[in-house]
Amino acid sequence: MEKSNQIPLREGERIDDLLTQNLHIIQSREVFSFSMDAVLLGRFASVPARGRVLDLCTGNGVIPLLLSTRTKADIEGVEIQERLADMAERSVAMNGLQERIRIHQADLKSFHETAGHGMYDAVTVNPPYTQLTGSEIKANRHEAIARHEIHCTLEDVVQAGARLVKQGGKVSMVHRPHRLADILTLMRQYRIEPKRVRFVHPRAGMEANMVLVEGLRDGKPEMRILPPLIVYNEQGEYCDEIMTIYYGKPGEEA
Amino acid sequence: MEKSNQIPLREGERIDDLLTQNLHIIQSREVFSFSMDAVLLGRFASVPARGRVLDLCTGNGVIPLLLSTRTKADIEGVEIQERLADMAERSVAMNGLQERIRIHQADLKSFHETAGHGMYDAVTVNPPYTQLTGSEIKANRHEAIARHEIHCTLEDVVQAGARLVKQGGKVSMVHRPHRLADILTLMRQYRIEPKRVRFVHPRAGMEANMVLVEGLRDGKPEMRILPPLIVYNEQGEYCDEIMTIYYGKPGEEA
Repeated sequence: MEKSNQIPLREGERIDDLLTQNLHIIQSREVFSFSMDAVLLGRFASVPARGRVLDLCTGNGVIPLLLSTRTKADIEGVEIQERLADMAERSVAMNGLQERIRIHQADLKSFHETAGHGMYDAVTVNPPYTQLTGSEIKANRHEAIARHEIHCTLEDVVQAGARLVKQGGKVSMVHRPHRLADILTLMRQYRIEPKRVRFVHPRAGMEANMVLVEGLRDGKPEMRILPPLIVYNEQGEYCDEIMTIYYGKPGEEA
Repeated sequence: MEKSNQIPLREGERIDDLLTQNLHIIQSREVFSFSMDAVLLGRFASVPARGRVLDLCTGNGVIPLLLSTRTKADIEGVEIQERLADMAERSVAMNGLQERIRIHQADLKSFHETAGHGMYDAVTVNPPYTQLTGSEIKANRHEAIARHEIHCTLEDVVQAGARLVKQGGKVSMVHRPHRLADILTLMRQYRIEPKRVRFVHPRAGMEANMVLVEGLRDGKPEMRILPPLIVYNEQGEYCDEIMTIYYGKPGEEA
């Protein structure tokens, strides 16, 4: 927590421990806090040992921070909201990772105009999940943008990933399972062939409430459904694998 | 086994117990034997209490026989191979179900020409899984046709289901998970919206080797991923749910 002395915190912000390699992150109940979804994607995504990795919808930069423990690649994050991009930049600085992680305050829909096409070995994204219905009520705008498809739809996200990733590169995403048919058909439409899928179930006997999907740019059709990831055991405690993902050794994929 | 006295068996055929409601079925190691896939689909598929149900690629009629324990609907089966359709018909007769199950020796690609469009409340199918590569070697032709896409492709099967089912009716399928993206995109293409998906894993920590998918003709996009179905427990015995599916009370869906 002594790190807070060097990095200015804004009102309502706190510093949380990422529980791995002494990483810390700035969060805010009012503005943005990361969820388990991001942690699971940060472990699920295949990342090259070196090269360039891009995280879209990066929020407070949680996924770049987590990925930095698994790869020596240069990592970039794109976040449309200035307030969140600023949080992410300060978290990067707080961890002394400015040489390895760069945050761009930018719109993923036009990011290729400055970043170029096909420049990244891997792209990750934990996008807003909720489709707009016109009746959204959200207490604060930052949270609303992070959770609802206000600035980007699922199609925008897949299209951006397809534009930014190299041929043979990987695009991985976490989303809600009820959109699975949308995700797979859009990935195919934009030539990201779905290759690895993992479903997350709160308990062994319950429906999935999260899905991790990874596709290969211009890959051959053939996908694998990984073992189910069960969050809680019968005693209501985290299952061993979740404990390992949160506290486990870096460099592993799950 | 005394049933064999009334129904003629052909060389190499045997009578197996379907383990539910005293149903029996004619099988043959050389010609065709049903697999766990068919049993799981027979339990997974949503069937109406009454109405008309059609099973495509019915083989020796195992799915119509199993469905007859769960519904009072009229059940029909379509099988292209005369040898298998004959086995199925004799199994139906052996169980005294001729009034409730009818077997058609026909090609599913043209079955709508006689059966009509949109006449069934539910369609089930356990199709051939394996795409042709040109290098197939199979000891016998009946098995080859049942297992390989010789007479029908996945697209043929989905198209046939879409043609034959009513608007608002259900099409359910068992297949291999590596085809999931193909299955979901083809279902959408033919206006069968995927709604319920269940993956079958041999053991808790293993990848899925089977997938059950059910779609709704002209349904709204929104799918559910059901709890994973695990076949074997850590002791290498069938898990409780598999035992229930094989020996359980009829009328339940899983």
